[in-house]
Amino acid sequence: MSGKHLVIVGGGVIGLSAAWRLAAAGHAVKLVDPTPGRGASWVAGGMLAPVSEAWPGEETALHLGEESLRRWPAFAEALTAEGGSPDLSTAGTLLVAFDRGDADQVDVVAEYLAKVGREAERLTSRQVRAAESGLGAVRGGLLVPGDLGVDNRKLLRALRLAASRRGVEFIEDNVTAVEPGRVRTASGELDCDVVVLAAGARSGGLHPKLAGAVRPLKGEILRLRARRSSLPPPRRTVRAVVEGRPIYLVPRVDGELVLGATQYEAGFDETVGARGVRELLEGAERVFPSVGEYELAETAAGLRAASVDTVPFIGELEPGIFAATGHHRNGLLMAPVTADAIVALLAGEEPPPGVAAAHPERLEH
Amino acid sequence: MSGKHLVIVGGGVIGLSAAWRLAAAGHAVKLVDPTPGRGASWVAGGMLAPVSEAWPGEETALHLGEESLRRWPAFAEALTAEGGSPDLSTAGTLLVAFDRGDADQVDVVAEYLAKVGREAERLTSRQVRAAESGLGAVRGGLLVPGDLGVDNRKLLRALRLAASRRGVEFIEDNVTAVEPGRVRTASGELDCDVVVLAAGARSGGLHPKLAGAVRPLKGEILRLRARRSSLPPPRRTVRAVVEGRPIYLVPRVDGELVLGATQYEAGFDETVGARGVRELLEGAERVFPSVGEYELAETAAGLRAASVDTVPFIGELEPGIFAATGHHRNGLLMAPVTADAIVALLAGEEPPPGVAAAHPERLEH
Repeated sequence: MSGKHLVIVGGGVIGLSAAWRLAAAGHAVKLVDPTPGRGASWVAGGMLAPVSEAWPGEETALHLGEESLRRWPAFAEALTAEGGSPDLSTAGTLLVAFDRGDADQVDVVAEYLAKVGREAERLTSRQVRAAESGLGAVRGGLLVPGDLGVDNRKLLRALRLAASRRGVEFIEDNVTAVEPGRVRTASGELDCDVVVLAAGARSGGLHPKLAGAVRPLKGEILRLRARRSSLPPPRRTVRAVVEGRPIYLVPRVDGELVLGATQYEAGFDETVGARGVRELLEGAERVFPSVGEYELAETAAGLRAASVDTVPFIGELEPGIFAATGHHRNGLLMAPVTADAIVALLAGEEPPPGVAAAHPERLEH
Repeated sequence: MSGKHLVIVGGGVIGLSAAWRLAAAGHAVKLVDPTPGRGASWVAGGMLAPVSEAWPGEETALHLGEESLRRWPAFAEALTAEGGSPDLSTAGTLLVAFDRGDADQVDVVAEYLAKVGREAERLTSRQVRAAESGLGAVRGGLLVPGDLGVDNRKLLRALRLAASRRGVEFIEDNVTAVEPGRVRTASGELDCDVVVLAAGARSGGLHPKLAGAVRPLKGEILRLRARRSSLPPPRRTVRAVVEGRPIYLVPRVDGELVLGATQYEAGFDETVGARGVRELLEGAERVFPSVGEYELAETAAGLRAASVDTVPFIGELEPGIFAATGHHRNGLLMAPVTADAIVALLAGEEPPPGVAAAHPERLEH
């Protein structure tokens, strides 16, 4: 095949994954981002868990997530072969319930999982405590062994490395406008055959078809570290709902524990809020009381690229401009299927199953 | 007078204040600290409030604090004349009570204040709300107009500037040993006539007479910023006890609000703990609910130089070595009286009232 000249707008997990796979497919790729490898992907837990992240009514996103989850092991393997590892974890997810309401919610997830043929095991209070020591007074739980996880920051570093090795040129600049075959930046312009718009929460301001369709959805996370005197983190990702607020605790191989995530409509504000931090800590202490003894190493906020119908936008916006954005809470999960889709679409081939439903044209109907 | 060659060990508020005043008095001063202007003084609220900080039984420290408070306006004025300002605030302190137990504690403070002739005004719930809008459901309070406050970080910068202008030489190094007339550092040694040991929590490891007498007492603070959409910070420092834990909210002129402070025995650990942050935020939201909307700009931990009897150590440890350390929670407050005392003692003059009780010799009896 003859390679095209491409410009990727955005260096989060979607832009980096697309850049890497497109360069590997023989295209000449430039990636523009003022701070590649940062953005919302940097501020994330790293769960690859389509079902336990899905909300009722989000079946389209769920199917796309499941499709991407299946692609993750090969994606991680290919990435590791390029020299960097995302620390793919297969320890699975443990959903825990503290009261009757939580237990009902766990039942809904269990039904979902059964429907899509995914393995899951209901656990009694005693079984939960046997599976993970140190948890609070749980009523019961659900073990989801097929969920994966990555260290999002190692993933971003590995993607940058892999993209660089495949010849992707990084341009650290702000994009001010996107046109067919042309990207304008703060310091000049770049001509190309095709633009891939992967600018996350800022995509809505860069193409009229995405205006109002993609918006920022702020999220805060905390990174904690176990002390020598405290219990080590749980072995699996633990999820719960505390006082109506969903919370997750994601362990890292090095003893770090990521707590997430708040969710607010706050425009492009990326500051960390006092209440969000208090609520995350309060929730985490309820789930896993030893967290109180941990070091609070970092507080951070990011802007998810929320989609108006929770489904991402993957496909041609107009000749010469493709969208790969609007991944909502699922950017890390959906990176492999999105990168594969863009590679296929540029080659005029059939994209992976589920991608058609993510075409930006759906907004016009 | 003929100036001496002095080496000050430690560049917190005590070391910097002593260095500045000693250089101004005609001595040749070197100050050794790996990071001058940091340490516990950097992680502080900046309250200059001897009484509302005093605990029953701490009368010696209280008297010394009152003596230093009287010296603060002139100290701040002299400092400002050197080019930098500590933003001395005269807005006073408001103690608030949420329940009967708190109200009893406020009564104790009121009695203390009356005893030492300080002005204070009891307020009803309605009067508290009139004095400061946005407070939680308070039962009553006590207005202490005479308490002062500074911006501790501006103070440290101003002291560094003033010391430099007076010729103090800063040596950024770690001190490994202190001997009469000699200070050993990681990279060499410094000879002098007199050493002033102002190494805060680390002083206990630098002189045998202070071993066990000065120890680290960890404290955490948070720095928050009001958002445009939220209520501005209180006008005065507000103090309360929430669930048995004392908390203060100290406003800065630029819309910043400092929350403090936790208190733990944790050795030389300077990491921020999850529980401490949660408790500070929880307490602050109880006192001033709008805090939840604020940006959490910084979390920080420092090591106060706790004294075994809460009284600092100011005086000769042995010929050629003076102590100026162990200021417990009161380093910022006691900087002027401590600096004045060291200047007087080196000149063979009478130190300020109250300083005699802080002589290190008391430990030998």
